[in-house]
Amino acid sequence: MQIRDMVKKPAKWLDAAGDEKEIVLSSRIRMARNIEDRRFPQNAEKEELAAVLEQTRSAADKTSALGTCHYFPMGNVSSLDRQFLAERHLVSREFLFNSSNRGLIVNAGEDLCVMINEEDHLRIQSFGAGFNLRQAYDRADRVDSELSRQLGFAFTDRLGHLTACPTNLGTGLRASLLIHLPGLVHSKEINKLLDSLRQLHHSIRGLYGEGTEVMGNFFQLSNNVTLGLSEDVIVSNLKEMVLKVIGFERRAREMLFRKARSLLEDKVWRAYGLLCHSRSVSTKEALSLISAVRLGVGMGIVKNLSLKTLNELLVYIQPAHLQMREGRSMDAHQRDVARADYLRHKLSGDMHQEEE
Amino acid sequence: MQIRDMVKKPAKWLDAAGDEKEIVLSSRIRMARNIEDRRFPQNAEKEELAAVLEQTRSAADKTSALGTCHYFPMGNVSSLDRQFLAERHLVSREFLFNSSNRGLIVNAGEDLCVMINEEDHLRIQSFGAGFNLRQAYDRADRVDSELSRQLGFAFTDRLGHLTACPTNLGTGLRASLLIHLPGLVHSKEINKLLDSLRQLHHSIRGLYGEGTEVMGNFFQLSNNVTLGLSEDVIVSNLKEMVLKVIGFERRAREMLFRKARSLLEDKVWRAYGLLCHSRSVSTKEALSLISAVRLGVGMGIVKNLSLKTLNELLVYIQPAHLQMREGRSMDAHQRDVARADYLRHKLSGDMHQEEE
Repeated sequence: MQIRDMVKKPAKWLDAAGDEKEIVLSSRIRMARNIEDRRFPQNAEKEELAAVLEQTRSAADKTSALGTCHYFPMGNVSSLDRQFLAERHLVSREFLFNSSNRGLIVNAGEDLCVMINEEDHLRIQSFGAGFNLRQAYDRADRVDSELSRQLGFAFTDRLGHLTACPTNLGTGLRASLLIHLPGLVHSKEINKLLDSLRQLHHSIRGLYGEGTEVMGNFFQLSNNVTLGLSEDVIVSNLKEMVLKVIGFERRAREMLFRKARSLLEDKVWRAYGLLCHSRSVSTKEALSLISAVRLGVGMGIVKNLSLKTLNELLVYIQPAHLQMREGRSMDAHQRDVARADYLRHKLSGDMHQEEE
Repeated sequence: MQIRDMVKKPAKWLDAAGDEKEIVLSSRIRMARNIEDRRFPQNAEKEELAAVLEQTRSAADKTSALGTCHYFPMGNVSSLDRQFLAERHLVSREFLFNSSNRGLIVNAGEDLCVMINEEDHLRIQSFGAGFNLRQAYDRADRVDSELSRQLGFAFTDRLGHLTACPTNLGTGLRASLLIHLPGLVHSKEINKLLDSLRQLHHSIRGLYGEGTEVMGNFFQLSNNVTLGLSEDVIVSNLKEMVLKVIGFERRAREMLFRKARSLLEDKVWRAYGLLCHSRSVSTKEALSLISAVRLGVGMGIVKNLSLKTLNELLVYIQPAHLQMREGRSMDAHQRDVARADYLRHKLSGDMHQEEE
């Protein structure tokens, strides 16, 4: 398989099949692991990095929990391909700037992957639709156990897993949720909430992780603390926290519906009208329109349109996805036009299909 | 017939059947006439006004050029009904504020009417679709001749027709066109053009005449001079002037299409999307959106949507029309919601119907 073939099929975790899908788009687990007796990537020579690549690749081949996998050595991959992988959340932005001696292993459903030689030797990731941290954790855990047996991960009883950055020491675990909070943004309660979450040692980021702008009211919520807590406790804490956030969001949406229903309906349908008819749309505007329509679907205002379609749009309107679909490089203006075409095509198709 | 029944059918002159219909919506002729030996309305006693009403009504009954007519004494008419008639361009705003001893005669197709006891005893009006001043003039002229024979209009050889306001002396004729100039507005040439027209003794007004705001790039263009020129020359001068304006507008549209096609298409389709999906729209916004879509239809960007529908929308989204259709009084917020409902209903109907 080639990277460009992946554009034909959205990742499984976008299918809006999970719990609380109106609010939680997806659950993600990431484990930072390093092979014992090897230097962390930033200190390692080329040869050592190449050895880590090869070692990991070979171990992954024998890891039944990964199923059928593809291996992509990043050095051979164009920058458009790398951006494409980043838009699918399979590689971090780190991979965009430096690709040498780095690699990606990804399974067929794109719900399991291993980044090789990012900040750590291995970054095992697992994705699930909706609010299903436990499931995502269990799947990552199985991959971790199998790889650990083969590769031997750096670990001490006192510090747990050793990682390149001390913030990941211990479990090396980051559990995160992609969550849609338009109600709390509209009611202006979001900043208070974000402050509380930070005080409780959780991070809030934009759609594409660290340092990315919050757009379309989509947030990534994750744990900050990896050390001194078991993996179980980390996942349970985040789960409990997010249940509260979901409750706040539901209440904010109900309030909005009760107090400003016609305003809300107007906003939702205007966004829908623009998505269905515009001829040029920036990523930022598209995300904001999708956000409004997603809220409308979640509240039963827009019918005959699936959350699955809207989830897929979030990824497919991104620059590399548009260029990959068209099979050519495009400047920002051309992408805005292609984005509008895609949105129109996709939304009319969805409504039509589901009305039948 | 009652006034409220008129809402069921749009006036004939909205049917976009005339010449240059992409740019000129309608042609209108108005003649100011006064019955000799009677005081002008503003100086007349109640009894004299009543006599003028009765005299005119009876003469109209015998005027074959008017065909089958309805007579509405304004004193019996609710303010909503009067606003409704004003929105149909059948009565002036004068009639909204003072209705006593005033009346309206209107034919079945609503392309001929006579206002009684407005500023002058009679204001004969004729409407035609598109750019057809001559036809509209001929029809008004026939009504004028027949009524003149029966009523005897105040006329001197030196001054021509005598009118309450000296600006109407002579022919008492105002020829006007409702014209859509989005190209010239976008290209910012409009103000230069309007200045030239004013210097050439023509007036430019908004959609509802004197003192009304220009909205949606719709202008009323008419002659200022009524004295010292024959009716023929007045009509010919205006016709010639408007031909030039049409030429300028066409050139501006072509330029826009050549230089900013994708921007233009985006603007047109966004307006279409909002008209088709919004849940609350003000009159001003609706006119601006209709203007963009009308430009799109005129330039072949939007297909399957008729200028006739768009012309009708201009009238039917007005406040009294919305209330008349719903059969109840509505506040501004309720009207905005009803307007959005109507637009959605009407546009989806039109597209659907014409796609079949």
